Amino acid sequence: MIDSIYSKSFASDNHAGVHPTVLEAMADANHGDAPAYGGDTWTATFEQRVKDVFGPQAEGFAVLNGAGANLVGLALMLGRYDAIICPDTAHIATHETGATERLLGVKLVTVPTPDGKLRPADVASRLSVLGAHHHPQPRVVSISQVTELGTCYSPDEIAALAETAHAAGLRLHVDGARLANAAAYHGCGLDEITTAAGVDVFSFGGTKNGALAAEAVVVLDPSLAGAVPFLRRQSLQLASKMRFVSAQLTALLTDDLWRRNAAHANAMALRLADGLAGVPDVTLEHPVESNAVFARLPIPMATTLQRRHRFHFWDEAAGVVRWMTAFDTTPDHVDHFLTDIRKAAM
Amino acid sequence: MIDSIYSKSFASDNHAGVHPTVLEAMADANHGDAPAYGGDTWTATFEQRVKDVFGPQAEGFAVLNGAGANLVGLALMLGRYDAIICPDTAHIATHETGATERLLGVKLVTVPTPDGKLRPADVASRLSVLGAHHHPQPRVVSISQVTELGTCYSPDEIAALAETAHAAGLRLHVDGARLANAAAYHGCGLDEITTAAGVDVFSFGGTKNGALAAEAVVVLDPSLAGAVPFLRRQSLQLASKMRFVSAQLTALLTDDLWRRNAAHANAMALRLADGLAGVPDVTLEHPVESNAVFARLPIPMATTLQRRHRFHFWDEAAGVVRWMTAFDTTPDHVDHFLTDIRKAAM
Amino acid sequence: MIDSIYSKSFASDNHAGVHPTVLEAMADANHGDAPAYGGDTWTATFEQRVKDVFGPQAEGFAVLNGAGANLVGLALMLGRYDAIICPDTAHIATHETGATERLLGVKLVTVPTPDGKLRPADVASRLSVLGAHHHPQPRVVSISQVTELGTCYSPDEIAALAETAHAAGLRLHVDGARLANAAAYHGCGLDEITTAAGVDVFSFGGTKNGALAAEAVVVLDPSLAGAVPFLRRQSLQLASKMRFVSAQLTALLTDDLWRRNAAHANAMALRLADGLAGVPDVTLEHPVESNAVFARLPIPMATTLQRRHRFHFWDEAAGVVRWMTAFDTTPDHVDHFLTDIRKAAM
Amino acid sequence: MIDSIYSKSFASDNHAGVHPTVLEAMADANHGDAPAYGGDTWTATFEQRVKDVFGPQAEGFAVLNGAGANLVGLALMLGRYDAIICPDTAHIATHETGATERLLGVKLVTVPTPDGKLRPADVASRLSVLGAHHHPQPRVVSISQVTELGTCYSPDEIAALAETAHAAGLRLHVDGARLANAAAYHGCGLDEITTAAGVDVFSFGGTKNGALAAEAVVVLDPSLAGAVPFLRRQSLQLASKMRFVSAQLTALLTDDLWRRNAAHANAMALRLADGLAGVPDVTLEHPVESNAVFARLPIPMATTLQRRHRFHFWDEAAGVVRWMTAFDTTPDHVDHFLTDIRKAAM
Repeated sequence: MIDSIYSKSFASDNHAGVHPTVLEAMADANHGDAPAYGGDTWTATFEQRVKDVFGPQAEGFAVLNGAGANLVGLALMLGRYDAIICPDTAHIATHETGATERLLGVKLVTVPTPDGKLRPADVASRLSVLGAHHHPQPRVVSISQVTELGTCYSPDEIAALAETAHAAGLRLHVDGARLANAAAYHGCGLDEITTAAGVDVFSFGGTKNGALAAEAVVVLDPSLAGAVPFLRRQSLQLASKMRFVSAQLTALLTDDLWRRNAAHANAMALRLADGLAGVPDVTLEHPVESNAVFARLPIPMATTLQRRHRFHFWDEAAGVVRWMTAFDTTPDHVDHFLTDIRKAAM
Repeated sequence: MIDSIYSKSFASDNHAGVHPTVLEAMADANHGDAPAYGGDTWTATFEQRVKDVFGPQAEGFAVLNGAGANLVGLALMLGRYDAIICPDTAHIATHETGATERLLGVKLVTVPTPDGKLRPADVASRLSVLGAHHHPQPRVVSISQVTELGTCYSPDEIAALAETAHAAGLRLHVDGARLANAAAYHGCGLDEITTAAGVDVFSFGGTKNGALAAEAVVVLDPSLAGAVPFLRRQSLQLASKMRFVSAQLTALLTDDLWRRNAAHANAMALRLADGLAGVPDVTLEHPVESNAVFARLPIPMATTLQRRHRFHFWDEAAGVVRWMTAFDTTPDHVDHFLTDIRKAAM
Repeated sequence: MIDSIYSKSFASDNHAGVHPTVLEAMADANHGDAPAYGGDTWTATFEQRVKDVFGPQAEGFAVLNGAGANLVGLALMLGRYDAIICPDTAHIATHETGATERLLGVKLVTVPTPDGKLRPADVASRLSVLGAHHHPQPRVVSISQVTELGTCYSPDEIAALAETAHAAGLRLHVDGARLANAAAYHGCGLDEITTAAGVDVFSFGGTKNGALAAEAVVVLDPSLAGAVPFLRRQSLQLASKMRFVSAQLTALLTDDLWRRNAAHANAMALRLADGLAGVPDVTLEHPVESNAVFARLPIPMATTLQRRHRFHFWDEAAGVVRWMTAFDTTPDHVDHFLTDIRKAAM
Repeated sequence: MIDSIYSKSFASDNHAGVHPTVLEAMADANHGDAPAYGGDTWTATFEQRVKDVFGPQAEGFAVLNGAGANLVGLALMLGRYDAIICPDTAHIATHETGATERLLGVKLVTVPTPDGKLRPADVASRLSVLGAHHHPQPRVVSISQVTELGTCYSPDEIAALAETAHAAGLRLHVDGARLANAAAYHGCGLDEITTAAGVDVFSFGGTKNGALAAEAVVVLDPSLAGAVPFLRRQSLQLASKMRFVSAQLTALLTDDLWRRNAAHANAMALRLADGLAGVPDVTLEHPVESNAVFARLPIPMATTLQRRHRFHFWDEAAGVVRWMTAFDTTPDHVDHFLTDIRKAAM
């Protein structure tokens, strides 16, 4: 049904395979023995690379997937009766099978937003329970960069959230599963939307950007880093043959491979969005600021397209779909897809 | 300090790298797009291979590491006020940073054993609390095959435990991080020490036997399998690019690679143990039934050896060390090590 | 500041003391020894009384407070990756310091409602995640009777919710902290809004209705009852000298004391609401169907009143207050309060 | 079967009822309204009484039962990957249905002891895992005073444990369900075995010493006290009509009622133990230092006695029974019991 010409999935950036440079780095790590659990030289290199990119206080810890990176990072900052303030679209609130509640044991105070982005006023409006012992206490503001709706926070927007959070004694966490795409969109350094903006703990995603399975928890507040090895181990996120995880992350952080991959995926999304202009009955739901295109189209048109192309409805009732591009999406993939979209629209 | 001739670690089988066939299988999986989270063909192949090896009722689920495999497998069988009966040397009791208590929320009822092996009488003696509401209720017997002391349960020993457990309404779980080594030791099929012996749920370890990072949870009781996808996802053990995990497991389960790797490692341990005969002051602590050699030797002799060879004390006060071999340990590695042991013993 | 004439609190029905009949029952239980943890005759009497009132399949378990009653009741029906659908005003979602997330480990799927009452369509709209392993699975619909906004579900409304829940494989739980007030409002039996309406598990509150500290978890599905003793003990809700808790509940369930207390409190709320008619700038926020009056009034007027009377803002920004009556609120208390309200309104 | 002359239970001190002074104090608290959740004057009085008895830094928090007191007190000192070192007889390890593991999520490192008492060397021997991220980290030493075997720690023994714990960065917790009995045994102040001995957090039990249902968590390290209101509420240990719990504790702490009750119970146990001298086949298992007598006797003799007297086997296989006395056990009760014991021994 889905032949080779149309074989590129627009359903998710994790339908893509592994970037050749990353796979090569893994093969290069396969020489001889190495201490397990991170005592190896590949991991030391990765840890240094994190400091190079995010600043000397940054401590990076490789983990196995994005949900794990979020859980370990959040666990550092949350006690037994605490709460997280986040947008109601947050991945930790919607797509992790309740791991936040089950494994962390904390409440998610979710805030509706038009575009997936939390504002300082959203945070401020949830703080009246501070000090009241019938209520879990907000301790962390958690945002996603890129958001689940494909939008990006600017460095200033993040700094404003950090300021609001810190003023109230809360910390700022960033789910950076697509942090690379956000830095590529803003044309800024990864540190500008993290370290310089006042973030306390964040994840840096590799898997959606060309890695096989590698994410990092990065801790910018040195007082928190000591707990990570324990929480990572307990949270089932420690690889015994760690060198193969570290090697992936180092590959992405070398020669700006992370940026090249992300910028390319972003450009392909923009090409797709631009190509939609003038297609009847198809409108963009959100500005295209990363590798995601949210579009609204007639449901029969969408289901016709799904016969030849892989993608998911975001909100089936509303006829909203999410189209994702990846590091290996080509202009041809996009143009073929656009041709079919136009055909379906007629 | 540790030069290339002596570079083979005897500290752990996870100091080894990845078997070339496994790495090749991963590279072969890196073609084009594939559905994420296990909807791919590599995963379908792995699932079928599990049925081929363990029987048609066996359902296999790939996970990321051994602690995760144990946690997901145990979670299937344990409710809110339950307990696990296990040897006090069990990995789940000693080396997983309290994940069993923290993430599962259950009590471990640990039984001292001389050789790491639980007996039916050990189980029976812990059942008097059944029905008493001041006590958590034993629901699972968990054993390790190979045990943490390098010994193996025979098929009959497992069957006897299963019978005792089932008669009391408990289930039998096997931590099979080194299941391959046990089957290789017994010269039997993997199914003979699992399916045929009455095991309910077990893990099948790949990482210590030549994989990069791949373990399987195998469920033999079909009534339990439906919960795995939810528990695996929640427990942070689901890979988005699953094909690369499944491909590793399939490689091990193809052409008996699992057995060749494990049998070789076992043979190297035996070669080491045999070579210790007649070395003054060095005695074996446990029979060598897998790829582990537990030896007792004078502490200064051990620390002298550690200057040139990587290995850990198992019980430093007692002068007991654990020497592990791997799929890629060579006779030369062993013989060099033996030479140094004999030298240090003089 | 608050003198004796104005000493009746309108802040909460748990500002009241203990009904004399209840206290007397406790004193009567203080004769000689009795088995601990519920093996006593007072507890047997209570358990029989529950069957008399709610039907022969009803099994009642005395606990120490309302939060505990909810937690134990919900724990019976929820596994490791489950969710509860409830109104966003639910006490379990807002006022229990995150116990639902922390101790049960489940997600609360909260639904906005105009009046605190969940409708079948609200439930139906949250079921699309059933079977999808990235999402916790809704297993329980939980409602409060009386709701947190003072409104009551009719027997038919509860039956409709039960039908919707059961059709989808979910169960229906009722937080009945003020169940007595609801039955008094409807003039029906306690069983008509529970057993006959298809409820699976509910709590029956004593403390807000004249007890000292006594609530019951009542289980109508016999398959669930066996777990209660374990969960109650583990959840810190088992009294050693249980007879004194059971005696309170039996007292309330004898000669309809529960109904007399609740009907009186309801009547006092109605008297207060009726007296507000024509008071300028004071409007009712919700129909008065229990012992709570939600009123909107100018904030300065409210703060003036607070100088002489105890009550809380419900929503300070909106000028909404909650006035509660109790079993021992007298017409004089209400009339004095009304006098002051009218004075403040001028 | 059990007639009135033999009606005094020797099974547990919580088979006793409530001391009249305590019940009277509860009735006295039943006048008019009072703020809920501890904002009342009875609670303020109790809190001051705690400071009077235990020192100005002591902060007392009333809770509902002993398991709750332990859980709240321990939660103050334990993070996500921590462990408790305690004797293997500890109530928190054996009799709380796994609440420590399930609700706290921590591991219990249990140490066998001959007499229920932990020694500094026992603690020291469990500290080698500190800093090792595969192991939960010991953070708290928890002992019971009186122990589960009826023995008492001296002030010096507690001070030595506190010193060992503090030197390693751990804290010392005391399960003081029978703290009064220990102080009565030593003839010392309650502060001498807590505050002066270096304890960080302890519980003070009321229920086994004449209260209806009242225990206190007492925090001696001021940095920990702020978390108690949140943890108490979340752990289902906060009474809404708190004045009735506080009044019980104040009654016990007034005019040394706690000491009179405990000293009397202790004296009755000693009378029983003394009366056993010379009874053939009956021997004491442990020194009688509180209100418990552990005796070994022929099993048929024990079961004969159980026909007329209530008590439990402690270790049925070994023929060891536990006989408890209470504040209301009379010399006649003891002497009748002794008569029957002698009769059964013939």
